[in-house]
Parts: sequence; structure tokens; C-alpha cells
Amino acid sequence: MDRLDILVTYDVNVTSEDGQTRLVRVAKVCKNYGQRVQMSVFECRVTRAQLEEMEAKLLKIIEPDKDSLRIYTLLGGRDRCLRVHGQDRYTDFDDPLVV
Amino acid sequence: MDRLDILVTYDVNVTSEDGQTRLVRVAKVCKNYGQRVQMSVFECRVTRAQLEEMEAKLLKIIEPDKDSLRIYTLLGGRDRCLRVHGQDRYTDFDDPLVV
Repeated sequence: MDRLDILVTYDVNVTSEDGQTRLVRVAKVCKNYGQRVQMSVFECRVTRAQLEEMEAKLLKIIEPDKDSLRIYTLLGGRDRCLRVHGQDRYTDFDDPLVV
Repeated sequence: MDRLDILVTYDVNVTSEDGQTRLVRVAKVCKNYGQRVQMSVFECRVTRAQLEEMEAKLLKIIEPDKDSLRIYTLLGGRDRCLRVHGQDRYTDFDDPLVV
């Protein structure tokens, strides 16, 4: 099945009511679909259906007038798009070297 | 001249020595090339030369063993890649509606 490399970035306003709870919940959803690469950035390799599902879950959590959620589809795949410097937490589970 | 839509995301370890200074300096460089869309996320529309220049400047600031810098090229352009929810600070200066 075709999968997309996507990037999820978010700012949750933690000074607002329940902000800390929303932040934890957003991260929890993202973890189910991909890998945290920075504090508020996740890379996910998902099917289109998973993308829609994840987006729907996140939209139930965030407060649109307080938080920001951006989902980027990395057309052409992350390997063609990405330059990494410094600390890198990402593991490519599709890489045959990962056992 | 052909321009690329790129995304710069960073985590600077602010608990390390001079971390706060590095954080401010990274943001300052990014601001010269694009727009802050989240706390640690900038979208920039740049030429390839500007991308190289910006990257070189950022690499002089970050501490590779403490900080994380990721630069994504949005192949196909940001309009095709991006879904925005909640707060959106971005202004499209190429949009004819922006005066």
C-alpha cells in the first residue's frame, strides 16, 4: 500500500486552561503514527487513511483559537526532502540495516 | 529565479550553556529568510543560494551534540503539501490579495 511521509508540527498554548493536557494528548496521538524527531515535530510514514484518521483525532484535541497544528506531506519522500544537522532521533524502520 | 519552499525546524537545548543565546540567534537568522509559523518552525521561500547561505549560518550557531536542526524542502511547493489547523501566522506575500 502506498505510504506518505508526513511531518506534523504543533504549538499548544500550555498557558491556557488544559493546555498541558492537550500537549500530552497531541504527542500521544502522534506517537501512534510516527516518530518524534524534535519536541513538537513528528515524522510519520502513513497511508492516506491513517493520515485522515490521525488528523481527525488531533482535531478533536486542539483548541483552534489557541493552538497551531500543521501537517506537511513530504512529496517525493523524506529522503529527498530532508537535511538533518545535530541530534537526530529518527530510525528508519524500513532500512534493511535495522534489525 | 526559481525559489524553493522550505521548512526549518529546530530544538535548541536551552538548559545547556549559552543555549538561550543560540536559540535567539537561530530564530534571528531564520527570520531573515522566512516567516515564523510556530515557536520553532519557520517557512521560507528561498533560492538555492539563499538556502545554502542560511544553512551555513545556522551551522555556525548550533551545537551539534546538543541541538537539532532539520531543513525540509517542500517539493511541489507549500500549497500542495500543507494542511493548517488552528492558529496560522503565515502571510503569503506572493498572493495578489496582499497589498
